Amino acid sequence: MTGADDYLVDFTSYKSYSALRSLAAEPFNLKTPGVMSPERIAACRAVGGGFELLFFGQRVARPELAALQELADEARLVEQFAALRRGAVFNRIAGFASEERQVLHCSCRDIFRDRPAEPHATAQAKAELDKLQQFLADLDQGRLTTPQGEPFTGMIQIGIGGSDLGPRALYLALQAYAHPDRRVEFISNVDPDDAARVLKEMDLSRTLVNVVSKSGTTLETLANEELVRRAYRQAGLDPNAYFVAVTGQGSPMDNPANYLRSFYMFDYIGGRYSATSMVGLVMLGFALGYEPVQEILQGAHAADEAAMEPDIMKNPALLLALLGIWNRNFLRHESLAVLPYSQALVRFAAHLQQLDMESNGKSIDRRGQALNWDSGPIVWGEPGTNGQHAFYQLLHQGTGQAPAEFIGFRHSQYGQDLEIQETTAQEKLLANLLAQSLALAVGQDDPNPNRRFPGNRPSSILLADRLTPERMGALLALYEAKVVFQGFVWNINSFDQEGVQLGKRLANRLLEQFAARRRGENPPEDPVGQALLKNAGL
Amino acid sequence: MTGADDYLVDFTSYKSYSALRSLAAEPFNLKTPGVMSPERIAACRAVGGGFELLFFGQRVARPELAALQELADEARLVEQFAALRRGAVFNRIAGFASEERQVLHCSCRDIFRDRPAEPHATAQAKAELDKLQQFLADLDQGRLTTPQGEPFTGMIQIGIGGSDLGPRALYLALQAYAHPDRRVEFISNVDPDDAARVLKEMDLSRTLVNVVSKSGTTLETLANEELVRRAYRQAGLDPNAYFVAVTGQGSPMDNPANYLRSFYMFDYIGGRYSATSMVGLVMLGFALGYEPVQEILQGAHAADEAAMEPDIMKNPALLLALLGIWNRNFLRHESLAVLPYSQALVRFAAHLQQLDMESNGKSIDRRGQALNWDSGPIVWGEPGTNGQHAFYQLLHQGTGQAPAEFIGFRHSQYGQDLEIQETTAQEKLLANLLAQSLALAVGQDDPNPNRRFPGNRPSSILLADRLTPERMGALLALYEAKVVFQGFVWNINSFDQEGVQLGKRLANRLLEQFAARRRGENPPEDPVGQALLKNAGL
Repeated sequence: MTGADDYLVDFTSYKSYSALRSLAAEPFNLKTPGVMSPERIAACRAVGGGFELLFFGQRVARPELAALQELADEARLVEQFAALRRGAVFNRIAGFASEERQVLHCSCRDIFRDRPAEPHATAQAKAELDKLQQFLADLDQGRLTTPQGEPFTGMIQIGIGGSDLGPRALYLALQAYAHPDRRVEFISNVDPDDAARVLKEMDLSRTLVNVVSKSGTTLETLANEELVRRAYRQAGLDPNAYFVAVTGQGSPMDNPANYLRSFYMFDYIGGRYSATSMVGLVMLGFALGYEPVQEILQGAHAADEAAMEPDIMKNPALLLALLGIWNRNFLRHESLAVLPYSQALVRFAAHLQQLDMESNGKSIDRRGQALNWDSGPIVWGEPGTNGQHAFYQLLHQGTGQAPAEFIGFRHSQYGQDLEIQETTAQEKLLANLLAQSLALAVGQDDPNPNRRFPGNRPSSILLADRLTPERMGALLALYEAKVVFQGFVWNINSFDQEGVQLGKRLANRLLEQFAARRRGENPPEDPVGQALLKNAGL
Repeated sequence: MTGADDYLVDFTSYKSYSALRSLAAEPFNLKTPGVMSPERIAACRAVGGGFELLFFGQRVARPELAALQELADEARLVEQFAALRRGAVFNRIAGFASEERQVLHCSCRDIFRDRPAEPHATAQAKAELDKLQQFLADLDQGRLTTPQGEPFTGMIQIGIGGSDLGPRALYLALQAYAHPDRRVEFISNVDPDDAARVLKEMDLSRTLVNVVSKSGTTLETLANEELVRRAYRQAGLDPNAYFVAVTGQGSPMDNPANYLRSFYMFDYIGGRYSATSMVGLVMLGFALGYEPVQEILQGAHAADEAAMEPDIMKNPALLLALLGIWNRNFLRHESLAVLPYSQALVRFAAHLQQLDMESNGKSIDRRGQALNWDSGPIVWGEPGTNGQHAFYQLLHQGTGQAPAEFIGFRHSQYGQDLEIQETTAQEKLLANLLAQSLALAVGQDDPNPNRRFPGNRPSSILLADRLTPERMGALLALYEAKVVFQGFVWNINSFDQEGVQLGKRLANRLLEQFAARRRGENPPEDPVGQALLKNAGL
């Protein structure tokens, strides 16, 4: 079987890299009269997997697209993705101590065909799904109730990072489809006020708590679990009758005696790729029901399949990745704005921040050598049209720039709308979406310098029909594939996160100072740490 | 009186500009052995207005600080701020058509002394505050109730941009102090799903609606007001018995017949600076009560006063502005991460995005000439410790970088905490805050290249005692002053937003296509617009 080490190629060594460098010397000009024509708009449209990607706003024409296709082929991006899905050990740094893990988030939705890419992981995913189905049926049919025999009406999810951002983004995106009598809140931050606020709002006697931590040792999650357990005890409730766990087999949390139900997650799925595992699905199943959970998985699986298409004009995830490379490495843009024209996607950019920046915010390649090229951008964003009334001023007229990825849906979720001044709110939303991409591209001249817009600011629009559970699953998986493709181009390990360790270690050093004080002992020798605490007034 | 036009000086013409350029040729190295000493940590600490700014993590030493102080003096930043508070017309572009307005957000909290800087605006603010006090007393004392005689338990604020982001950030920040029987929701986006979700969750028969729009013509706000009025009518309720307005005098919304109560906002306060006007205070008064509203104003006023201190070591707002200039213009960082270690500040960065990027995302100076220097950065951020489990990987090890502004509080809001492994959650939160700034600065060497941290990544920590209403008001005003100071340095108009106009105009062109279709007429000739709609499947 082809392994991950068969692909360790320097980005700058590709022929297409040189071609793109040449093209970037004088980047395609969107302001040239006649360029932004109906023909260009029709030609700059990739379709696949239920999405259309309109990229008339990108600074590309035929030669750039040809070079990007060549890059996809030279770097064997689809082939690498196939190897990843089959279970090659892509989470490693050749020649150095590293996590040495498979990357199998696609397996947990590869459950709809007889011969999944990696049968073992898919079998494990199916077993957990069966447990989830049973759990949800027990809740629905009254076999699992509060000790007082009442149905559960709330769930608190305790988790941080991947156990919070992706699940929370999906929950908020799909509230339109949620069970009317069930509500979910989240506690993530070690800030004790996070738990305090949520505890104040929930009726604990009717509320499940879902504690999610793969290692079972995450500082924030343990602290919050203990805070919440204490609140249950103080309310005269037995936490073990309310708490559910999602954790790794054999972790300190893998103790069914402490939990009503336990679900497993596996070390071949990284936190930021885990929303379609039990990390997201237990909570989503509670909120939405089991069928929508299956629809999410169907959408994600279909997007994984659609990402296998080698032609960039039929593979929006792949093209989005390559346009990102063009903007980052050749037009030298440092950040990326993700701007969904859908209020339901209010926290999708926060999820993408983790997915993208934790995956591709790296400085060494898959052999441990320092990169000679830039890797992942800073990702940020808020829903439109809200952003138009906030930070778009800078996007249009600032000295800095950020390429934009707009996301939109032809139909609203609730279908509640009305005409004002002859158009509906949904039409206003979509008109603004399209207009922004056009405005960024073509700019405007004016005798008043304050009304000049430089134009040539890159953007694209990812469109779909309606934000359903299936489409949300697909959108999630499309962005996962995009990030993975970019990591392949940059020849980096997109699946570890060594960069979080130093801060943890230094925080522990400071915590030793606090702990020693509490014990009344002399604190460990640490002049810098002590100076930090003293000057912070602590 | 000194006017705004007395300060039209090119940034690059200051002596301190040249000094800073020279210093930036070899920026101060935080990794030099011995640099990160207890002495440095103690010396890099500015104190004023109830805040401490710890900036040991910035790439500055005595010469850089001296040059930044010189820049503050040369550019007469405090003098300009004083002129602004006195009512000079700073919202203008000399020689071109522009808004020609005073900038008087500070006046609406300059109510605690006999001789405010600008008496007229402060008198207007006081008159509105008196109306608010009456309104809140009427609610509290049962003189103002639902038509059924019940107390109001909910409020929906309809507004967008400054009528949403700042007020929402403050509401979320101060939920710990909120009236337990009152809840606020927000509708901002023209996406009809935004209103649909909120309407589904609120008991309309007990819910006030606060419609906020200075012009009374904001597309999103009008559409949402109409959607919500329809929902009231459909529920058999008379909207006029529930709706409250905050708008400009003489606007189309200035019609007391349609509203239970009307409050005024004034054109000398821009949307993004309006949170301490009726734009924020009507809703905050409902949620918190009138006393906390006064505390917010006291805090903001104290911060305005503290920003008048010329010594950068005694003026955190000023120093924060100057460190931002150092990072943006001399170390050439394009973005700024604002990272509050307080879950209550979950939407503060979203407010700052508007405040900063809409104010300073400009490319021309106050005389209409193209800038020869960079202006405002891209601002983004999420609360820590959550961010540590998301995007900090890139901050520590990415090829891109973003300077960070951490914000923290020594004490939690709720005071509910417990010891786990000998430290409290609040101690864990603060240890992580301090550790991150240190880690970014000093980095780490390691034989394993994946465990190397380059260091020299700039950050500072803004600290205060506890996030109370007063402190929140002060934090809001501190950042307003920071943004205004930076605009003065860059010689730009931080108070207009022409950059939002082009997108609006193009959106209206597309809306004409929709409207013509609906009328069954031939749509206006617009080949590009029609191509956009067609290729979007619309």
